[in-house]
Amino acid sequence: MKFAASFAIAALAAAVAAPASAQFAKPEDAVKYRQSVMFVMSQHVARIGAMVNGKAPYDAKVAADNAALVAEFAKLPWPGFVAGTDKIGNTKAKPEIWTDQAKFKETNEKLVAETEKLSAAAKTNNLDNLKAAFSSTADTCKSCHDTFRNK
Amino acid sequence: MKFAASFAIAALAAAVAAPASAQFAKPEDAVKYRQSVMFVMSQHVARIGAMVNGKAPYDAKVAADNAALVAEFAKLPWPGFVAGTDKIGNTKAKPEIWTDQAKFKETNEKLVAETEKLSAAAKTNNLDNLKAAFSSTADTCKSCHDTFRNK
Repeated sequence: MKFAASFAIAALAAAVAAPASAQFAKPEDAVKYRQSVMFVMSQHVARIGAMVNGKAPYDAKVAADNAALVAEFAKLPWPGFVAGTDKIGNTKAKPEIWTDQAKFKETNEKLVAETEKLSAAAKTNNLDNLKAAFSSTADTCKSCHDTFRNK
Repeated sequence: MKFAASFAIAALAAAVAAPASAQFAKPEDAVKYRQSVMFVMSQHVARIGAMVNGKAPYDAKVAADNAALVAEFAKLPWPGFVAGTDKIGNTKAKPEIWTDQAKFKETNEKLVAETEKLSAAAKTNNLDNLKAAFSSTADTCKSCHDTFRNK
């Protein structure tokens, strides 16, 4: 009951902050939601990465489509980090997500900003612009993972 | 090798058809991708459903935000149904997805069309419009699941 109550309060707080008013029926759904969003995002990041790294031919339309999706996905996972879900399932979430919420929020916002720049860069149809923005986005991913995600 | 080759060819075919040029490093990623997209979509559908069913207060902005996401997500999972991934992991995908591709494609397109109508209805700020479009979208989900997904 104590857990359920604190989960409900945290979910409410997340819902207020969330762009799409996040509400999860149970804590497991919150974990699965954030992991699912991150996985789908990673697939679209990888498709841009393949072009940036010369492993796939550069296609401006494909890059722009994927970057637009990445920018949309980057806004979503944060409400899934509901308080009390740091021990649920196979999460790699570090306790620092909840003990240093200001920094976590700052890195979330940085990713949203960087992926918006990535999407804008992808629309310029210029591979060098895409490479620069991709590198900056990748650094943002890594920095947050280093701090807030277990290996 | 045979599997890898047929997977590569199927992935290529999917990539050509896909809005975001889907490419998966391995078959498991294709399964995880489609399941992740479906789960995230289901969460946003549920938030609209709660309002439609009177279990959450109607908030036109929340409904519109969630419906816009659902319409975007509805476009994504299809390239994940790569040929040869009907026995991978814990998939509920029925063989009919691959043996009746014309019908599967038709239902995919129906969902895209219905969720676009849902998003348009959500923007009218009228709960009755939302209810009608939600009911139609839910029927489309169920019809496809009944035909193409194991329980």
